[in-house]
Amino acid sequence: MRGVAIIGCGMTKFGRLEGKDLMDLLAEASLRAIDDAGAGERDFDSVYVGNMMAGELVHQTTIASALVDRINLIPAAAERVENGPASGASAVKNGFLAVASGASDLVLVAGGEKMTAADTDVIGDLVSTMTHPTAEYAHGVTLPAMAAMLTRLYMERYGVTERHLAMVAVKNHANALKNPYAHLQRKCTIEGAMSSIMIADPLRLYYCCPISDGAAALVLCPAEKAKEFSGEPVRIAGFGHATDTHAVQEREDPAVLKSVQLASQHAFKLAKLEPKDIDVVELHDAFEILEIAQSEDAGFFPKGEGHLAVEKGITTLEGELPINPSGGLKARGHPVGATGVAQIVELVWHLRGEAGERQVKDAKRAFACNFGGFGNNTVIHILERMG
Amino acid sequence: MRGVAIIGCGMTKFGRLEGKDLMDLLAEASLRAIDDAGAGERDFDSVYVGNMMAGELVHQTTIASALVDRINLIPAAAERVENGPASGASAVKNGFLAVASGASDLVLVAGGEKMTAADTDVIGDLVSTMTHPTAEYAHGVTLPAMAAMLTRLYMERYGVTERHLAMVAVKNHANALKNPYAHLQRKCTIEGAMSSIMIADPLRLYYCCPISDGAAALVLCPAEKAKEFSGEPVRIAGFGHATDTHAVQEREDPAVLKSVQLASQHAFKLAKLEPKDIDVVELHDAFEILEIAQSEDAGFFPKGEGHLAVEKGITTLEGELPINPSGGLKARGHPVGATGVAQIVELVWHLRGEAGERQVKDAKRAFACNFGGFGNNTVIHILERMG
Repeated sequence: MRGVAIIGCGMTKFGRLEGKDLMDLLAEASLRAIDDAGAGERDFDSVYVGNMMAGELVHQTTIASALVDRINLIPAAAERVENGPASGASAVKNGFLAVASGASDLVLVAGGEKMTAADTDVIGDLVSTMTHPTAEYAHGVTLPAMAAMLTRLYMERYGVTERHLAMVAVKNHANALKNPYAHLQRKCTIEGAMSSIMIADPLRLYYCCPISDGAAALVLCPAEKAKEFSGEPVRIAGFGHATDTHAVQEREDPAVLKSVQLASQHAFKLAKLEPKDIDVVELHDAFEILEIAQSEDAGFFPKGEGHLAVEKGITTLEGELPINPSGGLKARGHPVGATGVAQIVELVWHLRGEAGERQVKDAKRAFACNFGGFGNNTVIHILERMG
Repeated sequence: MRGVAIIGCGMTKFGRLEGKDLMDLLAEASLRAIDDAGAGERDFDSVYVGNMMAGELVHQTTIASALVDRINLIPAAAERVENGPASGASAVKNGFLAVASGASDLVLVAGGEKMTAADTDVIGDLVSTMTHPTAEYAHGVTLPAMAAMLTRLYMERYGVTERHLAMVAVKNHANALKNPYAHLQRKCTIEGAMSSIMIADPLRLYYCCPISDGAAALVLCPAEKAKEFSGEPVRIAGFGHATDTHAVQEREDPAVLKSVQLASQHAFKLAKLEPKDIDVVELHDAFEILEIAQSEDAGFFPKGEGHLAVEKGITTLEGELPINPSGGLKARGHPVGATGVAQIVELVWHLRGEAGERQVKDAKRAFACNFGGFGNNTVIHILERMG
């Protein structure tokens, strides 16, 4: 397998982006990434677009073909990758494989979603279409409801309290305040979070991510050709991708995110690294309990002790293992198909030392977890500074 | 790049399949392919699902995760690939790259669509969502209308007549009569075709494909491991993938399918073969004019002479270059996401000598063209007998 480098990255601001449609967002992020790589005059071989719901939300299909035309990359190969909320990282993985295989020498990976194109109740329903049709969807189970049940389990079994959820939200909002691309750039206090409206008991508004528009993009090439481009290269050191039962109720232990465990183990093995080698992490906190659970199942903390790390401040920007310096899904926002790509864009900025006010000091190795369904499909990437 | 072999294949019957939902179809085709490979006891690394419109048609997203659960392939990696009508071949290409890169040793590729889940006018609109939103869709352009315009151009410029279109339909229906998997298993006569109702002048009903349900699947592994499995292996000798302008009106010559030309040239180069080396072909005749045009732009006949080859019987089962022995999209049917995979399943059967009554004699090398949008995204595969 050929080594693969990320040589360019870019993203749009996340948020409720009036006046910009999905193709505007994908084009904006893509052109920033191409410009960042200094690859504007190059011929791209392939384009991968991570997106969950363009057909459903904006009534447009084959958006990868559309993007290639919009940004003048014809005749590059193009396809859309859909893997629910893990669509972005799935697109990155397939772009990685296109380069690793030797088939492509220059690949654009973009992820985007225009979530505010539909009303909130429509979004809530569409997102629920990823649950099991007969075991879950038919009974009216929603993603916030599932996260609430996981939270309850964590509270009973591991002593997680509502205050721990609030602490994660406060941390992620504080990070987002330093991130000009974040959707929610406002301070959040423990008291504010704990008095916000109840969404699905025990989950309040501040323990759930917002509905956002946005896009992010990366340019990939073989590691040995990275020097031909202007951006400081970052190596994709490893990836992992694993599935779990579709219906959560069929899992041996619903508090264990097995797909996160397996995908992380695979990625660490491929990268020849261990959790202790990682300097900065982006996790998929669509709900704050997920940041805690993923930090355990990825191998950073023992099971049931993720909330203790939060308590000790280990996961803050100044802590031993900063998690979600971007603000995470909670505060940077979660335009579904964009998220997996945006996580990697954020980490590349840290590895390059370009993350501004929120820069994690001397970050050399980074870890991203993009979580599909309710944990039935997880894609992990491990990145490493090349210089 | 590692050599990649197809070691198993299977499909459902195509047609209006009452009582079977999309997951039933994908599971049925997948289990047949796995059984064909003798891989029922093996651990799969990755699953790629080609599908255009599950969210829109059957209100289910993340169907790749669902399939992996349904047929017990957890924890295999899984994602859906969407590339309009070329979704199937795009999924095959990415499965190929997963093996070629060394990342996966055993991959399932499935393609499927449940088209009859919606009314015909809904389907007509959904299929049109792949056209350019402002330059085409907003003006009410449909795919049959585009094909009608291409047909008109071919008639004026190259002397194609309605009788040529009818001859392609008659040939493909005759082939489908010998294919138990085909949707339309009934004879079609020149007179019958030429007196069928007008859809988009000059295209009558019999010059357009039907709306079908169905699924098809393949099992891939490294060529050097093919002997471990029971199915007679077929090598993926080459692939090509190219895009063209989204809006047809922006093409220098709208009668030239440039993405077919470029993708074919790339595939032949990779396979170190030429058009004359090919024994059997599957083309994307969603409309009969496309079989003629693709046979030229893929390099089998000079531009403007595809219809002469039809006249001479060259493309019949007994001819020098049989095209669409399966019955093609016209008569085997066109469940959009399944088509690109089904084309390859058909060709594998011919290369193995398992195509029954419609077997192309001593077929050693085969060519498949899966055509996305209205020619803005084409994926080509070239297959070769390994024995």
